[in-house]
Parts: sequence; C-alpha cells; structure tokens
Amino acid sequence: MLKVAILGASGYAGAELLRLLAQHPQVKITAVTSERSAGKSVAGMFPNLRDCNLIFEPLKIKNLRNKADLFFLCLPHKTSQEAVAFLYKSGKRVIDLSADYRLKDKKIYEKWYENRHMFPSLLKETVYGLPELYREKIKRASIIANPGCYPASAILGLAPVMGKSFIDSGTIIIDSKSGISGAGRNPSQPFMFSEANESVKAYAVTTHRHTPEIEQELSRLLRTKKKIKIVFTPHLIPMDRGIVSTIYVRLSAKRGEKINLSEIQKIYQDFYQKEPFVRVLGNGVYPTIKAVKGSNYCDISVFLDKRNPKTLTLIILSALDNLLKGASGQAVQNMNIMCGFDETSGLTALSAFP
Amino acid sequence: MLKVAILGASGYAGAELLRLLAQHPQVKITAVTSERSAGKSVAGMFPNLRDCNLIFEPLKIKNLRNKADLFFLCLPHKTSQEAVAFLYKSGKRVIDLSADYRLKDKKIYEKWYENRHMFPSLLKETVYGLPELYREKIKRASIIANPGCYPASAILGLAPVMGKSFIDSGTIIIDSKSGISGAGRNPSQPFMFSEANESVKAYAVTTHRHTPEIEQELSRLLRTKKKIKIVFTPHLIPMDRGIVSTIYVRLSAKRGEKINLSEIQKIYQDFYQKEPFVRVLGNGVYPTIKAVKGSNYCDISVFLDKRNPKTLTLIILSALDNLLKGASGQAVQNMNIMCGFDETSGLTALSAFP
Amino acid sequence: MLKVAILGASGYAGAELLRLLAQHPQVKITAVTSERSAGKSVAGMFPNLRDCNLIFEPLKIKNLRNKADLFFLCLPHKTSQEAVAFLYKSGKRVIDLSADYRLKDKKIYEKWYENRHMFPSLLKETVYGLPELYREKIKRASIIANPGCYPASAILGLAPVMGKSFIDSGTIIIDSKSGISGAGRNPSQPFMFSEANESVKAYAVTTHRHTPEIEQELSRLLRTKKKIKIVFTPHLIPMDRGIVSTIYVRLSAKRGEKINLSEIQKIYQDFYQKEPFVRVLGNGVYPTIKAVKGSNYCDISVFLDKRNPKTLTLIILSALDNLLKGASGQAVQNMNIMCGFDETSGLTALSAFP
Amino acid sequence: MLKVAILGASGYAGAELLRLLAQHPQVKITAVTSERSAGKSVAGMFPNLRDCNLIFEPLKIKNLRNKADLFFLCLPHKTSQEAVAFLYKSGKRVIDLSADYRLKDKKIYEKWYENRHMFPSLLKETVYGLPELYREKIKRASIIANPGCYPASAILGLAPVMGKSFIDSGTIIIDSKSGISGAGRNPSQPFMFSEANESVKAYAVTTHRHTPEIEQELSRLLRTKKKIKIVFTPHLIPMDRGIVSTIYVRLSAKRGEKINLSEIQKIYQDFYQKEPFVRVLGNGVYPTIKAVKGSNYCDISVFLDKRNPKTLTLIILSALDNLLKGASGQAVQNMNIMCGFDETSGLTALSAFP
Repeated sequence: MLKVAILGASGYAGAELLRLLAQHPQVKITAVTSERSAGKSVAGMFPNLRDCNLIFEPLKIKNLRNKADLFFLCLPHKTSQEAVAFLYKSGKRVIDLSADYRLKDKKIYEKWYENRHMFPSLLKETVYGLPELYREKIKRASIIANPGCYPASAILGLAPVMGKSFIDSGTIIIDSKSGISGAGRNPSQPFMFSEANESVKAYAVTTHRHTPEIEQELSRLLRTKKKIKIVFTPHLIPMDRGIVSTIYVRLSAKRGEKINLSEIQKIYQDFYQKEPFVRVLGNGVYPTIKAVKGSNYCDISVFLDKRNPKTLTLIILSALDNLLKGASGQAVQNMNIMCGFDETSGLTALSAFP
Repeated sequence: MLKVAILGASGYAGAELLRLLAQHPQVKITAVTSERSAGKSVAGMFPNLRDCNLIFEPLKIKNLRNKADLFFLCLPHKTSQEAVAFLYKSGKRVIDLSADYRLKDKKIYEKWYENRHMFPSLLKETVYGLPELYREKIKRASIIANPGCYPASAILGLAPVMGKSFIDSGTIIIDSKSGISGAGRNPSQPFMFSEANESVKAYAVTTHRHTPEIEQELSRLLRTKKKIKIVFTPHLIPMDRGIVSTIYVRLSAKRGEKINLSEIQKIYQDFYQKEPFVRVLGNGVYPTIKAVKGSNYCDISVFLDKRNPKTLTLIILSALDNLLKGASGQAVQNMNIMCGFDETSGLTALSAFP
Repeated sequence: MLKVAILGASGYAGAELLRLLAQHPQVKITAVTSERSAGKSVAGMFPNLRDCNLIFEPLKIKNLRNKADLFFLCLPHKTSQEAVAFLYKSGKRVIDLSADYRLKDKKIYEKWYENRHMFPSLLKETVYGLPELYREKIKRASIIANPGCYPASAILGLAPVMGKSFIDSGTIIIDSKSGISGAGRNPSQPFMFSEANESVKAYAVTTHRHTPEIEQELSRLLRTKKKIKIVFTPHLIPMDRGIVSTIYVRLSAKRGEKINLSEIQKIYQDFYQKEPFVRVLGNGVYPTIKAVKGSNYCDISVFLDKRNPKTLTLIILSALDNLLKGASGQAVQNMNIMCGFDETSGLTALSAFP
Repeated sequence: MLKVAILGASGYAGAELLRLLAQHPQVKITAVTSERSAGKSVAGMFPNLRDCNLIFEPLKIKNLRNKADLFFLCLPHKTSQEAVAFLYKSGKRVIDLSADYRLKDKKIYEKWYENRHMFPSLLKETVYGLPELYREKIKRASIIANPGCYPASAILGLAPVMGKSFIDSGTIIIDSKSGISGAGRNPSQPFMFSEANESVKAYAVTTHRHTPEIEQELSRLLRTKKKIKIVFTPHLIPMDRGIVSTIYVRLSAKRGEKINLSEIQKIYQDFYQKEPFVRVLGNGVYPTIKAVKGSNYCDISVFLDKRNPKTLTLIILSALDNLLKGASGQAVQNMNIMCGFDETSGLTALSAFP
C-alpha cells in the first residue's frame, strides 16, 4: 500500500481527496494536516466522512516527512512553495494542488500572485499535471503542479485544435460558469447561501489568476515560440459543483472556410480516443454539469457558427466537476500514473443522476 | 381607468402582467384568456394571486374586442399573428409579447420561425418596444412588438456603442445565462426541477430564434445599410428568474487603441442618463441577478480587456429580470408610454434582497 | 412625512426595512446606522438599493435621538435593550426587532438569552407587535416588540384555536422549515452556499430561543393562568426566504370527536376575516412559500387527521416570508397602526411568481 | 456473474440501479425495459450513463424471463403485480420497487391503492426488504417488496424503540422533508423547476400511500396484535435528493419519566451496532442530507424534549438518500443478501461533499 499524506486537508479539495483515497485500493492515508483544525477529527469536520478515524495534525513538515511516500498539498499558495521544496529535497513525490508551481515563468507567477518565488529552479522539475498532455512526463515526475479548475476545463476544451492552422489562436474567449464550491470553505459573505443563491455574477473580469495558466498551456500546445493571450471571464452559478466553459475561437481567415464541423469533431475524437476521462459528445449533444458531477469525466462538444462568413466561430463546450477532474480527481489520476497503478483506480464512480 | 385585456395569461409572462397590472393605479383588467384553462380562476392557477377574482375565458377574439382598449398578447407565435391583425383592424392598441411582429423582414421571420407571415403590411406599422431606442415611436404606435428576453438584455448592453468607430461590430459574441422561468410553465422534462437543478447547460447553440432579433436591432443602430451577424449562446442556470449576458466585442484595429475604459463608461452613462430603468454601474461593479430580480431594472457594467494589444476586447455585462424588463415589465412600460402615464407607473418595485 | 430611523440596518431585516420604507408614501428615512459599516453607503452594501443615497452612521444614540420620530431597531439583543430604554425615555416611539422586550417575564428572558434584563419595568410598557392579537394596544404603544419569524408563523397558525375546548393545548408540536436568510448576513460556515445547498438540517432541537416566545403568546391566548409548553423543531431549507410551519395539536379526549374539519375551518375564517394579511385557504389547498415570498401575507390551511380515533390530530400549515410578515413587513404594519396610516400602506406588493 | 434485468428502467430509480449495477463486481445487466423508450439507448436517456451500451426493450415479460436470474422491477404499481407473479412462477427471484407487494393485508392495499390485488397468496411469500429487520428472511426470499422511501426513513428511525414500554406508540408523528426526485421523471407542473424551487410545500396530508406501509411495519415491531396508526406529513424541498424525517413520539405516562436520553441513545447504538448502512450519530449531532446523499447510509440521531413533564417527547431525526437507501441502494443491498454477496458490494460510495 502506498502511504500518502494530505497537507491542508480541511477545505473542499482536501475533503474530496480524503473521500477518493479512502476508497482507493492501493493507498493508505497516513497523515492529514490542518493548521486551523489541528487536533480535531476528520469525521467531525466533514459529515460525509463520519466513519473516518483520522485526526488533523498541525503542519510540521519535518515530522511529516517520514510518514508518507507521496504528498498531496492543498495548502494556500506561498505556504505550498516551501513545503513542496522541502519534500522534494527529502526525496518525496509531491502533487501540489496550489498554484505555486504551475507557471513556468517566475516573473509571471510573481506578477499575478504578488508573491516572490523562492525556488525557481524547481519550476523546471515540475510537470503540469494534465495527463492528456503530459502523461509520459507525469510518470517520472517528482513534483506535479495539479491544474486549476478553470484551466483544466479550458485547456481540455482547446487542446485538440491548438496549433491547427484553421483557427486564429489570438481570438480565444473563454466564458466559464462555476459552482460555488470553487470559492472554498472559509466563511465569506459573497459565498453565503443567501448572497449566491438565485443569482449569477461575473467576477475578476480580465484579472483572474487562472488566466496566465491557461495562456501558458495553450501557448505550449502551439509548438512555436508564440505566446498567446486569451479573454477569460468566470461566473458564479448557484450550484455546488461543476464548471461549464463556453469557448469561442475564430476560424482563421484563410483556412477556416475549408473546414467543416464533422472534420473538427473527428479531430477531437481522435485526440481523446484513448483517454479514460474525456468524452467527446456526439453531434449536437450538449455537455451538462448533471452528467459529470461526482465523476472524473470532462465532457466536450463542439459547434461551428457559420452564419457570419467573415467571422466563422468555433464554439467549444466543456463540462467537468471542479473538485474532481478540476482538482482532487485529477490529483488522484496523476498519482495513479506516477505510481504505475491503473489510471482509473479509485476514480470509476459515475455521476449520480439527478 | 384604462381597460386592458391579457390574452394567453396562463403562463409566467401572463401571471407577471396580472400581478403588475393588478397594482397599477390607472388600469383595470377587464378580461383574461387561456385556452387550456378557460373557466378556471386566476386565483387557482397562480398561488401568488389568491385574491384575484378574474376567470380565464376562451380566446374568442370577436367577443373580446369590445372588452378593452388595450390588449396584451402572450399567445404562442402564429396564434398571435392573427389576433394582432384583428385587433389592429378593430382600432385597438396591442402589445404583443410573442415574436410574430418583431422581425421587420418577413423572410427572416419565415425562415427562423418556420411559419408564414400572413400580415406583412403590419410589420411596418409595428414598433419594436424598447423605449430606450424607440420611445417617441412607441407613443404613437398601435402595435408594439415587445422584445424577447435575451434581445432586451443584449441590445441594451450594446446600444451605446453600436455605430461607434472604435468597435468592430462584426465580432460580437453574446453569452447569456438565463433562469429556468424563461422556458415557460408547460410541463417538459428538461425543465423539471431534478433535471435543471445543480446544472448548467448551453442550448440552441447557433440556432436560437432570438438571434435574428438581436441582429436586426443592432444593425438598425448602426445607421448604415450594413447587416451585422452575431454569435449568440444561451445557457440554462438553476434559478427562477434573471438573465446575465456577457458580451464580447473587439475594438477596431485602427481606433480601438485610442479609447480607454473611462471614455466608454462615459458613453454608457450619457446614453442612459435619463432612462428610468437602466443603471450603468460604477467602475468595477458587477451586475448580478440578485440586484434586479423582481424589478424592472437592467444593470449594465463595462470592462476592457487590454491584455492582448491585437485583440482589445470590450466586455459588457448586462443583467435583468427576464419576466420584467425582459417581458411583462417592459410591456407595462410600453403601455405607460403609449397612454401618457408616468413611465414608471406600476413599475417602481425594488428587488427584494436576498 | 413621518421621520424614521433604522438602527442596525446592515443585515437582511434592515435591508428589507430600507426597501419597504423607501417606497412608503408617508415616511422619510432620516438616519440609518451600522457599527461595522459606518461611513459606507447603503447603495454599496445592498445591490438592490443601488439608488439609495443614505450613508450608514455609527450608533451614537444621543445624536440620533432628534433625527427621527419613530425608530426601528434591528440591533443584536443586549445592545437593543439600552437603545430602546433611552429612546423611550426621550419620548420616541420604538419598534424593536430584537428579542429584548418580547418576553414579559424577566426571568425567562434571562434564562434563554443568558443576559440580564436591565429595564424590567419597560416590559410592561411594551406591546407584542402582532396586530392580529394586539391591534388596539399597538395603536397606543410606545415600544413594540416585533415578533420573531418562527413565532409569527406559529402563533398566527394557532391563535384561532387556542382556548378552544376541543384541542388539548398541552400537545402542541411545531415543526418549522425556514429559508437561509433567517440566519442573517454575517459570514458563517453552516450558512455558506456549499454547506446549506442541497440539504435539510434540523437545529437547536429543544433549545431554540423562539420557544418561550411562542409559549408566552399561546398561553396568553388561553385566557387562563395556565402556562403551556410546546415542542418546537426548526429546520434549515435551501431557499432564500420563507417559513412553513407544520403544526400538530391533538384534539381533546372529550370534545375532540364532536368537531369536524369544516367547523374548524370556519373558526379560522371568522378569526381572520378582517385581517388584511392573513389568508385562510380553502379546503385541501396547501400553503407554499412561492405564494407568500416577497409579500406580507401569512397563508394558513387546516387539516384533520381522523385516522386514529384515540389521537385525532389537527394539522395546521402556516406559510409566510420570514423577512416580511416574519420581521420587517410586520414592523411596517405596526408602524402604520401606531401612526394611523392605512394598515397596508407600503405593504401591498404581491409575491412575484415564480 | 449474476445476470440481472431491470424492468421499467427509464425513471430515476431505474437509472440509479443502472449506475449501481454497472459498477457492481458480481453482476451483469442483461436486459433493461421501458415501454415509453423502447428502442432508445440508455446512454441517450441518462447523461450520467453516456458510456452504457444497453438499449431499452419493450416489456415483453415472456421473452425476458430467460434473460436473467434476478429481476429488479421499477414498474408502476398494478403493472408490477402481474410481472412479479409471472416471474415468481417462472422460478425467478424478484426485487419489486413498486408498492404492490409491500402491504400484507390485501384489503389495506386495495383501499389505499384503489386497485384490486390479483395475487394475494403471494403476499405471504413476499419479504419486506428492510435488511435491518428481516435479513434472515431476505436470504431465502423469492420476492422482495423493496420499501418506499419515506417508510425506509421512518421505520429505521423508529425500529429500536418500537415495543419499548417507555414510549406511547399511539402518538407517533412523522414529519418528512423530501427532495424533488421522489416525484419521478415524468413531466408534471408541480415538479417543474420554476414551481418547486425557492419553496416548501406539504402535500397529501393524511392521505399519502406510504402511511399504511409505515403503520404495518411499526405494528409488526410491537410483537403484539396491536395495530398502530400514525400521523404522516410529507413535504417537498427544493433539492434533488434526500429525505429527512423528524419523528415525534411521546414517552408513556408511567415509564417515560424514568428513562433518560443516554439510555435511549444506547438502545439505538446497540440496535444498529452491526449494521453496515445505519449510523447512529453522537449526542447533539444533527443528521443532514449533505452527509448521506449519494451514499447508502441512513443517519439517525435522537433528542429528548423534557420541557413539558406531562408530555415528554422523543424526537428522532433520520436522514437518507431517497434513491439509495430509500430505493435502489436498498434494492442492491437486498440482492447482495439474497445472493450471498458481501452485503456492501457495490454500495461503498461515500457522499461527495459538498
């Protein structure tokens, strides 16, 4: 049994890891930490884990080092930076759910997160944990930067067409709709039931920190030196879980007219053919949160707006559960790959409907 | 007291008209019709109108003609076409909440609604009932085509900048999020609680019938002969009421760089300065359903994405209550204008929070 | 115009008073206070009140004294105690939405609220602000103790049968279901969207502070010296507003068999016949939040379970909006009565459906 | 592998069986039927089962007979009656999720379901499928009448104290709160999103068909010939899944005073000590839907209201997922017991939080 620890396990991503790993056949959770809840029981903090007998420890990284072989970090950014570095140097494998190691360019990190990066050399060691793009590297990685929830949804939606000459990669607009659990478990007025219910609200327009992460990964997919920029608008939706990203990309002036929808659908089907957790839906079928919540699936469907010959637009719909494929499910998938387990181990649950 | 009738009053738009008009100081409701519920009481159909003593009549248009001076039509398209024509010929004023007279071009109507238009000559007589654009014409109109809910939200969001040289009007993308009441009151599986709750779903991508309506009005605002096309994507959100439209427009290559956000905000403030029901929000303030539901307001805020110098993008957020400013509130506002009442009469309710 | 002030106006009850009074034809709001938000604008705190130009002041009671004729107090209990006393001594009329003056018996207050009562002599001056029971006293009152939300729902549901020999008043069970706004606006984990949504939870079983308030008023209705005790169980429901109380009372052994449902319905209809805000529903019609939210109505329906001849049970369903008839609407109704205004002034809004 | 068929699989209970059985290690689904959807794919009907390649067949019972060893019936009552009888005579084992075989007394069935029972002799063969009460009989049963959702919640809540001399079993009141999925998947106005959302509504007061089922099982637990009657009030709550039952029982006049809460808690803990799916919560801990939805657990907590010495009241809170422990999860648990599988096989999923 692989011994794993979860650091910073008192939030929703931590709870989801606890739930998934408690049922994983090849894993034993040996430690969980929470600064705020040290000494308290997991069972008392999370009503769905009433039978769990783990107790939260304080985050004393040196004591924890020997308790596990692989560490999941759900710490705030900044705190995570040092913990990752320490564990790496101790020869441990780390899956970091914070943003600290996602951005390859130290300067971009420091600008968007307003925080110095103390371990820039480790950024090269780190693999961005999206198996659909980096499975081979993940196998050998010591540090995984687990993708953000919006980036997972956006990048999976766009990956098959990045670098294709029929799109204009400079015109990408990502309009995302997220459930409220994405805002975390700490009490905060905008996420109180009475404030968020029966409403929709855009937020962080042009300033959301997931923007450079999406841009980095889409740019890498171009396989050129070009750095693209996107327009990204997140919205809060009154539901517990899930993200739907509606993505708009203009077809390129020259090549766009020649391609048709079924060819693009084929590109998607081929790209994800062997992927266990990405489903490319049939023509005209709409992704929906109801089909993915509680599961590790990302459902994708593509549409083509041909009404304006000058601005043919590819519309990509991508749906996933922000706490599964958008966070903890992804992390477990990464662990499975790193450790040579069946990639779907512990992740086969289907969404419960309704 | 103005005598008014509501034809087809058993749906949500009808209920909302009943509620608004019951409290309107200058109006008396003299007839309400419903084919399906003829003979039943309004009080029994709508629990919020328990004290209403009106009874639904069948839609016998000839009998109804003399019962009222002004008619609100919440009939299905097709049925509405003939009723409007008949009432118009009888010298009555009509506010039609169906789509039958919204599209000026008979061919476009026939293509999108798959239905012949029998009274094309009346299309010229009809005024599109958006007071912010056509107040003077509404005063004298006999037939008002009351705007669709999505079009109201999109057109109000875009009107101030249509025709401005700093935008590229060929690049408009409208991503709308609507509450479930927009789907009406007839039982239908996709709109059952257990299907729509805890979910988000795009629908009618590239094919929604509100598309040509938005295009018509945005094109008219250009004051050229140019006909623009848009990309429009509606989404279902698990809430009763409300629409947020997130609108993306690229700034034009030449003139876009020279304009800044505060200048655009000023354009919006000036455009809507005297409007009783459009509020342009301050810099960085986000519209939200919670602020408009139950009221006749449309809240608008503008943002500018300058991150990609090649594709500067104006992002407009527009929020309204689909049953008020998006349907029945709009209709009452039109009636007020037509009849010389105070434009806000019967429409001063503020949103109840939360 | 009556000058009114709202002390402690930054919560939901305060917001609702601001909304109602802003539209009240005979009232002018001259001051609003909030310790936490002093100096901030009402418009910034409450998105539905974007056009309000009031600014929150700190609670300096001496300075406020001369600003208004009538004071609404939405302060925490304890703080309210002194403010009421001070304003009373200054000759002002006070409507206190806190619990500080609701309980006539100082000892019961001190036991349930774990707080000394410093002004027991004022308890006699105070009128419990339920117009259906105390309208005449309210007219002359200087201090109104505005009822709690659960008590309003329970007492209105039971008032017509209290003291009737056909019920056994010692067997009352009140099972209440409340929307989340009842928990207030301060950030707190159990009321976060992600915690309260898609759930139901009982709380404060046998210990809720509204228990002695309900018992006091039901006992007074007996017109004997008997003090009854009830079983009260509140539940949190994932909706913004509203309370449904399901009330169970056994019919008395001797007299219960002789009465039938239609006689009891008649008692209810007679009791509330002239009440503007209580609707007794027809036989078999169910109250629902959808019919009352946003309005000042309390809807009541009675059922009789005759299946067990030994324990005939009267089942009373009572629905109201916790922020209107359960708090701020009630307070405005009390003000209207105190000031000789039309009792329904400012309170005629119907619930918006859906 | 056990071959199983699901008859009437196009509703929510059917979908949940499909989901559970698809992941069950010892089972193979060999046939699914739906009259309405015959010829359609399961994948197309249920978005969470996109990868399922089963096709709905029409309900031709003779053809189906040989396709499976064990049959799950999610048919409407009446239809189920004959199918059960036919399959029983064919030597098949049947788990019937309808109400047709739940009531042992033919007359009670015929009165409440307004339908003749054609196979009264089979009622004796049938075992009521609540393993906590009838595990040994279930092992050998050919026909299982799977409990209704409300009865499962109520009976599990009351079983440990039925027959105890310290309660008065003639005073039981069950106030249940259910998510909307309990109303099924067929389009119907009261269960449309816009009707059920933001509301609470009691229904079927004194007339719900689950009443005699609860009464039968509670009476059997008394181990006397006494037949008890209960008061049962179901309510609709705006959430997808889950039932919380709040149960009130008076302690008996003589013996009630001598018992205290911790003794009663001990009785519950002992009663359910070895049960894999019933959790008796600690003192003061509240059951909640959030802790059980998506899982096969029933969480129970007991409280004692001692405030009224004359009417000491035991308050029992019981929470479960209506589609799992209240329907399909229960059915799978019964199958596991019947077939000698591990009782928790395929049922170990924990609730996903939030």
